[in-house]
Amino acid sequence: MKPSLVKGTRDFGPEQMSKRLFIFDTIRQTFKRFGFLPLETPSMENLSVLTGKYGDEGDQLLFKILNSGDFAANLTEADLQDGSKKLTPKIAEKGLRYDLTVPFARYVVMNRTNLALPFKRYQMQAVWRADRPQKGRYREFYQCDADVVGTDSLLCEAEIVLMIHEVFRNLGVADFTLKINNRKILAGIAEVIGAPGKEGLLSVAIDKLDKIGKEKVLDELRERGFSEESIVKLDPMFELGGQEVLLVINQLKTWLSTSETASQGTRELEQTLQLVDQYGLTDSRVEIDPTLARGLSYYTGAIFEVKANGVSIGSVSGGGRYDNLTGAFGMPGLSGVGISFGVDRIYDVMDELNLFPASAGQGTQVLIVPFDEAARSVALPLLNKLRRADIAAEAYPDLAKVKKMLDYANAKAIPYVILIGSEEVQTGLLSIKNMVTGEQQKISADAVVEHVSK
Amino acid sequence: MKPSLVKGTRDFGPEQMSKRLFIFDTIRQTFKRFGFLPLETPSMENLSVLTGKYGDEGDQLLFKILNSGDFAANLTEADLQDGSKKLTPKIAEKGLRYDLTVPFARYVVMNRTNLALPFKRYQMQAVWRADRPQKGRYREFYQCDADVVGTDSLLCEAEIVLMIHEVFRNLGVADFTLKINNRKILAGIAEVIGAPGKEGLLSVAIDKLDKIGKEKVLDELRERGFSEESIVKLDPMFELGGQEVLLVINQLKTWLSTSETASQGTRELEQTLQLVDQYGLTDSRVEIDPTLARGLSYYTGAIFEVKANGVSIGSVSGGGRYDNLTGAFGMPGLSGVGISFGVDRIYDVMDELNLFPASAGQGTQVLIVPFDEAARSVALPLLNKLRRADIAAEAYPDLAKVKKMLDYANAKAIPYVILIGSEEVQTGLLSIKNMVTGEQQKISADAVVEHVSK
Repeated sequence: MKPSLVKGTRDFGPEQMSKRLFIFDTIRQTFKRFGFLPLETPSMENLSVLTGKYGDEGDQLLFKILNSGDFAANLTEADLQDGSKKLTPKIAEKGLRYDLTVPFARYVVMNRTNLALPFKRYQMQAVWRADRPQKGRYREFYQCDADVVGTDSLLCEAEIVLMIHEVFRNLGVADFTLKINNRKILAGIAEVIGAPGKEGLLSVAIDKLDKIGKEKVLDELRERGFSEESIVKLDPMFELGGQEVLLVINQLKTWLSTSETASQGTRELEQTLQLVDQYGLTDSRVEIDPTLARGLSYYTGAIFEVKANGVSIGSVSGGGRYDNLTGAFGMPGLSGVGISFGVDRIYDVMDELNLFPASAGQGTQVLIVPFDEAARSVALPLLNKLRRADIAAEAYPDLAKVKKMLDYANAKAIPYVILIGSEEVQTGLLSIKNMVTGEQQKISADAVVEHVSK
Repeated sequence: MKPSLVKGTRDFGPEQMSKRLFIFDTIRQTFKRFGFLPLETPSMENLSVLTGKYGDEGDQLLFKILNSGDFAANLTEADLQDGSKKLTPKIAEKGLRYDLTVPFARYVVMNRTNLALPFKRYQMQAVWRADRPQKGRYREFYQCDADVVGTDSLLCEAEIVLMIHEVFRNLGVADFTLKINNRKILAGIAEVIGAPGKEGLLSVAIDKLDKIGKEKVLDELRERGFSEESIVKLDPMFELGGQEVLLVINQLKTWLSTSETASQGTRELEQTLQLVDQYGLTDSRVEIDPTLARGLSYYTGAIFEVKANGVSIGSVSGGGRYDNLTGAFGMPGLSGVGISFGVDRIYDVMDELNLFPASAGQGTQVLIVPFDEAARSVALPLLNKLRRADIAAEAYPDLAKVKKMLDYANAKAIPYVILIGSEEVQTGLLSIKNMVTGEQQKISADAVVEHVSK
């Protein structure tokens, strides 16, 4: 009879929710200021829409929904022969959204005749993955995505760089690093070291540089079939880290001059950063990381990743340019660029670094405590007046002991309590107690709004 | 290859979403002002939590989620014998949330030691029902609930009456009717006419009064086994409709004076309305409807229902008091009262009556159109400046024909377009076009923020 939560899912109580709403609101306002418009898609999609879009592993991680009605009516023993693989398509047609990108692509294709291109949309919704739950990994979590499709202008990349800075500054996360790369640079490196097309293998190994060090990365490359000659040619790569962006670009230009692909990549990167400069971005957090990959198969141009400094919580945001968002749905050649913010990780960062502003957790501002029925004739109009001034206020509903009511105010972190007894009703002067300082004073009902607003 | 939506689900494009966000924000702000705090629960619950809470029909309408991994590994032919009924529990442990009340009850029980009672929470989330889709009935829709548990004070009922008025007035839905009843009055009527305990049957029949008329209602009651004597005694009921609340209360008192239950119900109703008066509510929309039932089994005291006038869209809000929210989870005796707002129906009402304010659909305010690369040096800092002033702004990312860019602005209903060519770069005077009036004038970059803010 004891109820429990589904593993890997969470309740968000009032305090967490207030903080989460602060994150959602901040991101939404920033998206809006940048001209992105809201979109929401259903939680359920046909499995034909979802399957095959996330690789074999992704297909495994889709939550599937049992068909309604008597779904088993036509099943036979033969359907059980192959275990769940054969059975699933016979009893489940729908699945839960795995990310926001595929539903977005479906939306674009289904609405292509009515969409004004370039189409800038943002989407902030839950996604579900049937992963094994572990610390920091949930089966239901929120993504906040913003994408522009229908243009390959680098202005969009610059806007994303700018928007990332805005989002994190508006959140109060001042100390972050925005790593930026371009798929074409990675491809060019693979070309130049004589391993064309192997940028995927390359990036997987180099990604571990911070953790295992250069020598072990080289060992891994050897294991993965990179020749000694290639590995020697890779040397300039290890000299690039942590330098000023223009220096890195110049070094890349020199090193990769023989690759047309790489040259285009560095040009794109350079132009993007020049555009960012034109906006007048100050205190830029951009670093170039020629090894940054982030699920390479998907991206064709710029690649972005954001990490908060001072905590060891993975990336809090990532994205990039893709050239074929809607190809799987029969609409090829639509180029776009997007960024995704992970609310759950941003929450963890802000919580760990104590970055939530006091206002983020703010609930009720004023608790009114009428001591008896008569006091309600003063309490209730006052309650009404406070709310009209947009001040969150409530009355303690029962006639209880004062201590109990003050405990209630403390438990809800309500900063002001107004006590109304027979004396207050007679004199018209109410006792207002500041629950933070403990101070108590008498003021008229008319002065309350001003008193608690300051 | 053509993608499609799951039947009964919807995409919400930018225009619809902006309007929906207006509804969500308005309800959220009102809830907050009344001291309700946010809660969110997971989309998935264990079926053991959901099953048996919504009656047999409800159990049928639960969306069930296939277990992960090789869920069919241990199935045998015998498991197929009874169709889906026997098979379901072997392959599905989880289901999608069917309403917000049961997950709230589960939350309260699981967190009972840490909750400060009375606990006031609001919750605005999607729910899913495997219903046959039809006009106005969806498989995924949103509920916005606010409940207080842990007190039986009638102040809470009064607060709900007040909050309903606030929500609809803040939304701009001025013309609505809030019907209010009390389960005890209905029970008392059944007593007084000599059919104690039959208030459920009674209300189902009388609910059809508007549609089929008095005579047919009486016929239905005869069919349902009510005696002629009972039916005659019911006569005062039909005289009550549409009268001023105090008159109705007095008539109920006289008619039902022999029933102690009814007297308590009228007393509760009377006190609730007196408290509402004390707040100073003007232009009250409250009507007493002694036949109002709304899924009677659940409610034990007050019952609320709101309909918008001037449209034939069912109820847009409903709720009431219940005495045993958490009993099914082993925590009996917790009394509470709540109200639920149906966003989808509120949307339909506001759309049909054209009640959305212009600001509800407002997206980008300013489109900047740079004619060439050089113009970007003026366009981008201006873009930055507008956004810092909290004005949603974007630049057209490609260098395209002017007509194409103006079409884009029109398609997105952007009210201002700023055109920047070589002349503008030289003189510093930018052309700003009001897309609504067609007016165009020259202003300096410094004057733009003020110009579009007015």
